[in-house]
Amino acid sequence: MRFGVLGSGVVGRAITARVAALGHGVMIGTRDPDELMSRAGPDPRGRESFAEWRERNPEPDLGTFEEAAAAAEIVVNATAGDGSLDALAAAGADNLGGKILIDVSNPLDLSQGMPPSLLVPSTDSLAEQIQRAVPQALVVKTLNTVTAAVMVDPGSVGGGDHDVFVSGDDQTSKDTVIELLRSFGWTRINDLGGLASARTVEMYVPLWVALRGVLNTPMFNVRIVRAEG
Amino acid sequence: MRFGVLGSGVVGRAITARVAALGHGVMIGTRDPDELMSRAGPDPRGRESFAEWRERNPEPDLGTFEEAAAAAEIVVNATAGDGSLDALAAAGADNLGGKILIDVSNPLDLSQGMPPSLLVPSTDSLAEQIQRAVPQALVVKTLNTVTAAVMVDPGSVGGGDHDVFVSGDDQTSKDTVIELLRSFGWTRINDLGGLASARTVEMYVPLWVALRGVLNTPMFNVRIVRAEG
Repeated sequence: MRFGVLGSGVVGRAITARVAALGHGVMIGTRDPDELMSRAGPDPRGRESFAEWRERNPEPDLGTFEEAAAAAEIVVNATAGDGSLDALAAAGADNLGGKILIDVSNPLDLSQGMPPSLLVPSTDSLAEQIQRAVPQALVVKTLNTVTAAVMVDPGSVGGGDHDVFVSGDDQTSKDTVIELLRSFGWTRINDLGGLASARTVEMYVPLWVALRGVLNTPMFNVRIVRAEG
Repeated sequence: MRFGVLGSGVVGRAITARVAALGHGVMIGTRDPDELMSRAGPDPRGRESFAEWRERNPEPDLGTFEEAAAAAEIVVNATAGDGSLDALAAAGADNLGGKILIDVSNPLDLSQGMPPSLLVPSTDSLAEQIQRAVPQALVVKTLNTVTAAVMVDPGSVGGGDHDVFVSGDDQTSKDTVIELLRSFGWTRINDLGGLASARTVEMYVPLWVALRGVLNTPMFNVRIVRAEG
């Protein structure tokens, strides 16, 4: 499969590297590739620059949002939640129609301190906003409930014995995404139903943020524990 | 300790029976005790009437919201989220001031189908609304993330090896509540911080509701799984 990953941050880099390592073709899309490559040194949060990352990861193609989407069979929205709709507009509805659009983003508002609030009301979700903005795309929400390193390597936490969720209106697309998740190492995959169920995993994330503070690490997830019988 | 449990539904009954079994004094409070006792047969959801439950549980006192709060050292809000502020108004601020007020309720709006939405925006919580309505009470949010039977008997799921959360602005009150949770059987208790963190556990509940549908049982919880080291 050929992937287009929209977003050059920690999440986009992790997914791009993982699908490339699995043998898929992939282009990472960003607003302005030249500007991105020209940024020197670590970013304000102390993370390596994209150019440094790219030295270690030369295989993926680099292009604009539009180029990454146009060349892809499966598109991943790995942009920040407050920029996702703009990024998808730049990618172009024509380049997304009929394609699986995996949305791993979160509509978090971190501007008001902790805990974060959400940029959407509880009667909506960013995934549904994206679906309305690109009606011909096959939007599947997943992976937004864990940190980037766990998204692509669930075995890095507790041997992978924890849960991930999938929401989407098109079952065939969800089945394809579930196969991709299995190839990442996920074994406990919960299909929550239609895309409206994406509201529930987006609303979970403020608790994840609070727990990251309590646990002092992002390397965790939750495992569903059931009564026997 | 003497408890006042506001709410005569499944949650109020479970907590009342549990604290009584642990040797605490307890009065269950309701809007109109005579009317409650006069309701015949199972309720619209097929659950036993309060009068039937009371035949099996004769020890707890029964009174109005006001009487239950006035007689208590610790008050538990086990009313439905859409009726909590009215119930606490009926209990009376004078009867709640200086007392620990354990809020286990959820501000769910189930009127629009699944998934449920919340009656508060993500910048607020029912727990904080309660705190503002009763500024002299020591509000502690907990137990709202599991079904009633699990609240009072965590061992009924996976041997109790799963997590519960506590939020509140007064550390002494939280410590008392944590001791109470231990007496219920909880061993994995996460202090999320101040009462604003109650937003995160309230926002988690729509995911719980979705999972109840997928798992076809309310007898589950989540366990936090961390990376080793």
